[in-house]
Amino acid sequence: MDIHHRAEIISVGNELLRGEITDTNAGFLASQLPLLGIELNRMTTAGDDIRQLRETLERAQEKADIVLVTGGLGPTADDLTREAIAAVTGEEPTVDAALENNLRQLFGRMRQEMPPHNIKQAWLIPSAEALDNPLGTAPGWWVRKNGKTIAAMPGPPREMTIMWRNEVAPRLRKILSKQVILSRTFKTYGIPEAEVAEMVQSFFESENPSLGIYAHLDGIHLRFVARGNDAGQLLRNAGEQLDEIFGSRIWGRDDDSLEGLIGGWLGKTGLTLATIEDGTTGTIANLLSTTPGSARYYRGGLVTGSDATKIAFGVPPEVIATYGPVSPEVAGIMAAMIRERFSADIGLSTSGISQKSTVKGEPPGLTYVGVSDASGEKTWGHNFARFRDPSGQREAYGALFRLRERLIELKIA
Amino acid sequence: MDIHHRAEIISVGNELLRGEITDTNAGFLASQLPLLGIELNRMTTAGDDIRQLRETLERAQEKADIVLVTGGLGPTADDLTREAIAAVTGEEPTVDAALENNLRQLFGRMRQEMPPHNIKQAWLIPSAEALDNPLGTAPGWWVRKNGKTIAAMPGPPREMTIMWRNEVAPRLRKILSKQVILSRTFKTYGIPEAEVAEMVQSFFESENPSLGIYAHLDGIHLRFVARGNDAGQLLRNAGEQLDEIFGSRIWGRDDDSLEGLIGGWLGKTGLTLATIEDGTTGTIANLLSTTPGSARYYRGGLVTGSDATKIAFGVPPEVIATYGPVSPEVAGIMAAMIRERFSADIGLSTSGISQKSTVKGEPPGLTYVGVSDASGEKTWGHNFARFRDPSGQREAYGALFRLRERLIELKIA
Repeated sequence: MDIHHRAEIISVGNELLRGEITDTNAGFLASQLPLLGIELNRMTTAGDDIRQLRETLERAQEKADIVLVTGGLGPTADDLTREAIAAVTGEEPTVDAALENNLRQLFGRMRQEMPPHNIKQAWLIPSAEALDNPLGTAPGWWVRKNGKTIAAMPGPPREMTIMWRNEVAPRLRKILSKQVILSRTFKTYGIPEAEVAEMVQSFFESENPSLGIYAHLDGIHLRFVARGNDAGQLLRNAGEQLDEIFGSRIWGRDDDSLEGLIGGWLGKTGLTLATIEDGTTGTIANLLSTTPGSARYYRGGLVTGSDATKIAFGVPPEVIATYGPVSPEVAGIMAAMIRERFSADIGLSTSGISQKSTVKGEPPGLTYVGVSDASGEKTWGHNFARFRDPSGQREAYGALFRLRERLIELKIA
Repeated sequence: MDIHHRAEIISVGNELLRGEITDTNAGFLASQLPLLGIELNRMTTAGDDIRQLRETLERAQEKADIVLVTGGLGPTADDLTREAIAAVTGEEPTVDAALENNLRQLFGRMRQEMPPHNIKQAWLIPSAEALDNPLGTAPGWWVRKNGKTIAAMPGPPREMTIMWRNEVAPRLRKILSKQVILSRTFKTYGIPEAEVAEMVQSFFESENPSLGIYAHLDGIHLRFVARGNDAGQLLRNAGEQLDEIFGSRIWGRDDDSLEGLIGGWLGKTGLTLATIEDGTTGTIANLLSTTPGSARYYRGGLVTGSDATKIAFGVPPEVIATYGPVSPEVAGIMAAMIRERFSADIGLSTSGISQKSTVKGEPPGLTYVGVSDASGEKTWGHNFARFRDPSGQREAYGALFRLRERLIELKIA
C-alpha cells in the first residue's frame, strides 16, 4: 500500500524577513523530499512571532502530515519554535534533566557557565524526542502526535543539514511505507537548458521514475528518482534512454566533478598540467588546486593582470599587436608558454575579457581557450556573456570542458 | 500621518518546491522593503497550481495591503500567476492589443513567429497595468483594487530586479506616505557577528532609524534606515555613534568594496601589486583582476599547485624544509619573491592550507599572509577553519584586510 505523504517546510526568522540572509534550507530540504517519496505542498517563511508561528504551523498541518521547521531554536526570547510547537500540540514544555546536563557540560568544556537563558534549549514536550546537534547547542525536536509529524531543526545550514541526514531523514524513512527509492543524476554539457528540457519531454509523462532538471554552472543535471521494487531497473532503463538521446554530452554522474574527472585522468597517466588565465582570473586555478590530490598533477597557474605581464612571461609583443590580446593566436601561445614555464605536460590558457571589463573592438564576453601538449596547440572561441555569471565559474567550466575534449582526443582520458 | 503598510511576498514555481533552484528573489525583495518603509509579514513559496495560488493570494491579502509575486508569468499552461490574480480580483483576462503587438514585434526581431501559447503574456485585467520587462517576454502586472496592491514580476532574478527597480519600487513610492527614507551602510571587519550585535544593542531599541545586521565575507555590514524629515540627521548621528564604538574597524560604507578601496590607493600613488597564492588558490587574483581599472596597478598573480612550483619560482627548498611549507618564514619569502618576479612595488602572499586539504602536523585552516615592500616583509597568521567557507573568499578578504592594514601603516592609504 502506498500511503501518500505530504509535507510543508517552514523557515523561521526575522533575519529572513529582513532579507539579511538567503534561505538555502528550504531549497535543500525540498530537493531531499523526493528521495523519500514525500510530496511537498508549500514553503513558508515566518518571523519570530509566536502568534504568526503558531498559525503557520496549524495551517501547515491542515494539508500536510509532515512539517519541517528550520530556525527559532536559539536561546533568546525571540526563539519561539519550541513555544509554537507546544501551543499547537497543546502540551507544556518542561526542562529535560538529561538535556540540561548535556548543555551545562558543553559550556563547561568551553570553560564557561551556561547563561541562564540557554535553559530553554533543554525543554521538551511529552510528544517530542530530542535530536542531537553535534555542531551547535540547540537540540532539534522530533514530534509525533495524532498521525502528524513535526521535525524542528536549527537555522544555521551546517547544523541543519547534518541533523537532517543523521536524525530526521532516518526517522522519516522509518515511518514511511517500506518502499525502495533510488536516485541517479546524469550530468550533461553543451546544450541549453530549454533544449535539454525538450529532449527529455517524454520522461515528464511518467511519475515513476520522476525527473528533475537542475541547471548548474557545470552543465544541466538530470536527476531521476525511482520508487518500488523495480527502482533499480527503472533507473537503468532511464540511463539507457538518456545515452541514446545525449550520447557523449553526458560527462558524469552523481557526485562526479569535472575537475575531479580530469584530475583522475592526469593522475593515472602521470601527466602534469599548468594554467594561465586572463579573463577567468584565477577561477580555473582555484577549481584545480582545491581538488584533493591535485598537488600530484597540477603544477600551478598564472593569473595575468595585464598584457605587460603576458609579455614578461614570454608572449611576443608583436603577436599581441598583430592579432589583439583576445585572439586564438595569443591563446595558443599562452598555453604553450605556460606549459614550458611550469615544466608541465599540458598547458591550458584562457585569453579573454573578464565579465566586468571590455576590450576595444571585441564583443563583451569573448573568450578563447587554448590547450597545448607535445603535439601542438588547439584553440576554441566562447562567449558566455548572456549568462552574466559574476563568479566566472561558467567560463572556467567552459575551458575545462575543452580540456576534457582534448584529453579524450589525445587518448589521455 | 504615517499609514502603516504591510506586505507579503509570494514566490511561484514548481522548480522551487523541487529544490531545483534557490529562491533569491524573496530575500532580495525583503531587503528592499525597509527602504520604502514597508513592513513584511511573511514570505511563501507556492507551486504551479491555480487553486493553491489563488488561496495563497487571498490569504496574503487578509493581512497585507501589498502583495509582491515573482514567477508564473511564462507562456506555458503551468504559468498561472495571471489566472490566479484574475480569479482573486474577480476580473476576466483579455488580450491587450498593444501588448500583443509588442510581443509579436519582439519575436519578429529574432526572425521568429510568436508561438501561439505566448498570447497569454499579452493578457490584462481591467485593474492591471502592464510593467515593462526589457530582458524577457513577460510584462509584469501592477494591480490596484479596493485599496490592495498586487505587483507580479517575472521569476528570473535579472528580469525581476530590473522590473522592481524601474517599475515597481517607483510606483510603490507614489502610493506610500510622502516621507523621506534614507539608508546608510557601515562595513566593519575583524569582530565576530555575535560581538557586533552586542556592541550595537542599543540601536535596536529604536525603530527610527532601524538597524539590520548583514554578515558578509568581507565583514559585518550595519545598515541603518531612517524615515522622516530628520532622516539625514538621524543617519549622521548613528554614524558618529558607530565611529565611537568601532573606530577604525569600520573600513567602508555603502557600495565600497575592499579590493576597490585598495585599488584606489594604489592607482592614486602609482604603485603596483603582485600576488602569490598557496591556499587561497586564485581567489585573491580573481578579486583584484576583476576590479575595474586594475590593469593599471595589478601586475598579476601566481597560484602555486605544489611546493615544487614554489621552489621553481625562487623559494629556497631549505627554508621549506626547515620551517615547513605553511610558516611565516615561507610567507615572507614568497611575498618578496613575487614582488621581484613581477617587478611590482608590493607583493602579497598567502601560504596556507586550502579548505579541502590538510598538511601533516598543521591545524586545518592555518594560513599565513605576507606583505612585502621596499622596506621589508611583514607576516600574520590566520585561521578561518571554523567558518567552512568553500568559496575561499573569507580567507581572501582576510589577506586583503592585512594588505589594507599594511598600506595604512606605510602611509600609502
